[in-house]
Amino acid sequence: MEAGLTLYSYWRSSAAYRVRIGLNLKGLAYAVTPVHLVRDGGQQHAADYAALNPQELVPTLRHGERVLTQSLAILEYLEEVFPEPALLPADAGGRARVRALAQQVACDIHPLNNLRVMQFFDREWNVPQPERDEWTLHWMRKGFTALEAMVAGSFDTGRYCHGAEPGLADCCLVPQLYNARRFHLDLAPYPTLQRIEAACLALPAFDAARPENQIDAV
Amino acid sequence: MEAGLTLYSYWRSSAAYRVRIGLNLKGLAYAVTPVHLVRDGGQQHAADYAALNPQELVPTLRHGERVLTQSLAILEYLEEVFPEPALLPADAGGRARVRALAQQVACDIHPLNNLRVMQFFDREWNVPQPERDEWTLHWMRKGFTALEAMVAGSFDTGRYCHGAEPGLADCCLVPQLYNARRFHLDLAPYPTLQRIEAACLALPAFDAARPENQIDAV
Repeated sequence: MEAGLTLYSYWRSSAAYRVRIGLNLKGLAYAVTPVHLVRDGGQQHAADYAALNPQELVPTLRHGERVLTQSLAILEYLEEVFPEPALLPADAGGRARVRALAQQVACDIHPLNNLRVMQFFDREWNVPQPERDEWTLHWMRKGFTALEAMVAGSFDTGRYCHGAEPGLADCCLVPQLYNARRFHLDLAPYPTLQRIEAACLALPAFDAARPENQIDAV
Repeated sequence: MEAGLTLYSYWRSSAAYRVRIGLNLKGLAYAVTPVHLVRDGGQQHAADYAALNPQELVPTLRHGERVLTQSLAILEYLEEVFPEPALLPADAGGRARVRALAQQVACDIHPLNNLRVMQFFDREWNVPQPERDEWTLHWMRKGFTALEAMVAGSFDTGRYCHGAEPGLADCCLVPQLYNARRFHLDLAPYPTLQRIEAACLALPAFDAARPENQIDAV
């Protein structure tokens, strides 16, 4: 019997959203344990959750007895344990390209703009909301400008970030564009990213993973 | 004939340092093209470099005609093209653990503290140096605390982050500890990380990758 999968998730977390897409693309059934990032002072800081994930961040994935953290590490794990359909192309050059696109989001946009950073600015430096928003938009613009250049300028780009099948880069791009819309970022300079986003969201795997379709959405 | 490897590197960049370690661990010869991150307004912003790396960040690795960006994507590429000695363990659970440790550094510590963030604080918000340093130390402490918990609390930890051989997580940990020392972070709360760092730096592959041993070190 296959070991069960449980995702510790928050509906609006874009890192959790990435993993939901990956699970859905692979057709894997999973239970969701919501972790509310604001309520109760942040349920990710509760002792039982911190024991699973010492970073006190979402997502965490349980696969049987195994506890997995970090969204990209989780997606790579799913790729290795459940190889079909693949989230990465077969060739090393293509795999490097897809991982680089994914990491541009996961390393160089999202970590600068997530909840704990906003809380630091608010609590430690009293940065007003408009300036916090300008910070967020600044890093999104920088990141999306580079992403747009990389996908618009490559023959490897297809209907999705890499070729004709959705994969790891799309798992990261779509949630980051969701965040961008929350902050009313002008997406006009990124036509290729918008085209790929539309193609992705037309797929049931992406649609079911959307924040507003989660059991803990409010 | 094997295609040549050229690393676009800056001696103090911890992301470039990760890739230097990986190349050395695999015994790969490579040329270095220094990219000075401050001189000339930042040589990473020059048009010829930006054409290679639209993010205008280091490192970039050329392998023959192929251009690779994002340090972890580069290390995964090296792992696939030059599999021996391995930077990742063989089992999916171990690989996920090593990737998660690496990503804790590459996603959740380093991007918050790198040069472009410091420049934003200085130029856009006029944040004084002591407060910028406190920001840097804050995210290092948070990140190292979680890393220490994960390595100290696991039987998978050995002489190195994972078992008896150095790997991907060590490639990320050692440069981040180098950064920590630059900022005079008190490392006493992280005895396991310090022990692993010492084991790593005793290896020629790590020693040769140290910032102070680079051709562009000043």
